Amino acid sequence: MSVTRVQHFAVSLDGFATGEGQTREAPFGHAGERLHEWMFTTRWGRTAQGLPGGTGGADDAFLRLFTPGVGAEIMGAGKFGHPGWQDDPEWRGPWGPNPPFHTPVFVLTHHTRPPLAMEGGTTYHFLDATPAEALATARGAAGGLDVRIGGGPTVVRDFVRAGLVDHLHVVVVPIVLGRGVRLWDGLEGLEHDYDVESVATPSGVTHVTFARRDAEV
Amino acid sequence: MSVTRVQHFAVSLDGFATGEGQTREAPFGHAGERLHEWMFTTRWGRTAQGLPGGTGGADDAFLRLFTPGVGAEIMGAGKFGHPGWQDDPEWRGPWGPNPPFHTPVFVLTHHTRPPLAMEGGTTYHFLDATPAEALATARGAAGGLDVRIGGGPTVVRDFVRAGLVDHLHVVVVPIVLGRGVRLWDGLEGLEHDYDVESVATPSGVTHVTFARRDAEV
Ligand SMILES: NC(=O)c1ccc[n+]([C@@H]2O[C@H](COP(=O)([O-])OP(=O)(O)OC[C@H]3O[C@@H](n4cnc5c(N)ncnc54)[C@H](OP(=O)(O)O)[C@@H]3O)[C@@H](O)[C@H]2O)c1
Ligand SMILES: NC(=O)c1ccc[n+]([C@@H]2O[C@H](COP(=O)([O-])OP(=O)(O)OC[C@H]3O[C@@H](n4cnc5c(N)ncnc54)[C@H](OP(=O)(O)O)[C@@H]3O)[C@@H](O)[C@H]2O)c1
Repeated sequence: MSVTRVQHFAVSLDGFATGEGQTREAPFGHAGERLHEWMFTTRWGRTAQGLPGGTGGADDAFLRLFTPGVGAEIMGAGKFGHPGWQDDPEWRGPWGPNPPFHTPVFVLTHHTRPPLAMEGGTTYHFLDATPAEALATARGAAGGLDVRIGGGPTVVRDFVRAGLVDHLHVVVVPIVLGRGVRLWDGLEGLEHDYDVESVATPSGVTHVTFARRDAEV
Repeated sequence: MSVTRVQHFAVSLDGFATGEGQTREAPFGHAGERLHEWMFTTRWGRTAQGLPGGTGGADDAFLRLFTPGVGAEIMGAGKFGHPGWQDDPEWRGPWGPNPPFHTPVFVLTHHTRPPLAMEGGTTYHFLDATPAEALATARGAAGGLDVRIGGGPTVVRDFVRAGLVDHLHVVVVPIVLGRGVRLWDGLEGLEHDYDVESVATPSGVTHVTFARRDAEV
């Protein structure tokens, strides 16, 4: 059965999933790398950097769920690039020639362009569509596998609010960012539709997982 | 050594410490009891309700820190009563004739009145003062013991921002309240001054503790 999942989506204690002042050099604005430092010390994170070693606990386990069983990703224009990328015809995303997705990726944007085939199986498709339409398109391309909703916060929020997310995995990082884009806005009462679990790990973060009760439907 | 502490201060995932629409009957507004349900199943919480049994894990351990070593509490007008209590000369707080503090309690308010001596050692003093002044007054009354900053969120935030809180214990409850009064506003970068730890418990909440690095000063 194919589900829709949000994976290791990092937010601060005050609910910000990115900082203020995003630029090409600082994709998370003033947040820098503080929302993602917990990843770098895991075995998964170190392998991605070409380094040996790393932790093998729950942080690592959650990160290892990133790839298996996922057949497509949907992301927002704000994740695909810094403000203004739409005016740069050469922009091919921030992940280089061989992005880590290795599946079709649907970029939601009001400024569509032709598909971009990258190395390693990633193809970027640019889509101006409602969340439900985008999900139907991504499902069609996912070959029966799961669809990842990759962020940023605006897109995750829209999909959760539309009732389209089966598994929501949020990582609460114990910092107070103060400004940026919030995840939780407009999601009052979210917990009613999900089974919720929390686990804190030695890195200091807390994994909060929401599994939709009627995920079969 | 006397420290200033905030104890088991409950917030939702989106950072609200109370809901919208506070009344005498609903002191947490639309949040109801959802921020505090985790307490009711502990041994400490059940004893307070005159019931036997209850859990004895980390939730209970944290709650048991409420009384020992505390010589005074500071609270805000919004914790002392529903909006409008200031116009009710008979109002003696929501905790009945024998409140659970058993120490002097300093109620910060722009509508001061004479002190109120209650049963069991609690005396309410009404104070219009800055956080630093209020803390000096409470310290003077605490007999060398700690001062608890009891809330609500506005008062906790003001004291933390003024650098007056040594130990901050926040309980993140995995619900999305959507509206109310936020704790974290204006506290950007808080983590820099504190050692932070997180532990999730079987009740589903996460205890996040901030211990000030220079708490001796
Ligand atoms: N914390 C994490 O784990 C995490 C994960 C991923 C990303 N991020 C960060 O999140 C930030 C981006 O998030 P964000 O909330 O600002 O933006 P976003 O969610 O990535 O994208 C929102 C934008 O996508 C376009 N869009 C969204 N829905 C659409 C629809 N239905 N139809 C057409 N276009 C649509 C719109 O852009 P246009 O109108 O311009 O086309 C909209 O402004 C970046 O800083 C990124 O680094 C964080
Ligand atoms: N989540 C938790 O664990 C927790 C704990 C405790 C309380 N609560 C809840 O929090 C809510 C109350 O919080 P709140 O943020 O609305 O209010 P609050 O922090 O209790 O009180 C703020 C009010 O106190 C007065 N005040 C504050 N600082 C002052 C100063 N320096 N000098 C003079 N007066 C001052 C002002 O009232 P006036 O101008 O009217 O005098 C101000 O509006 C209630 O719903 C309560 O049930 C939650």
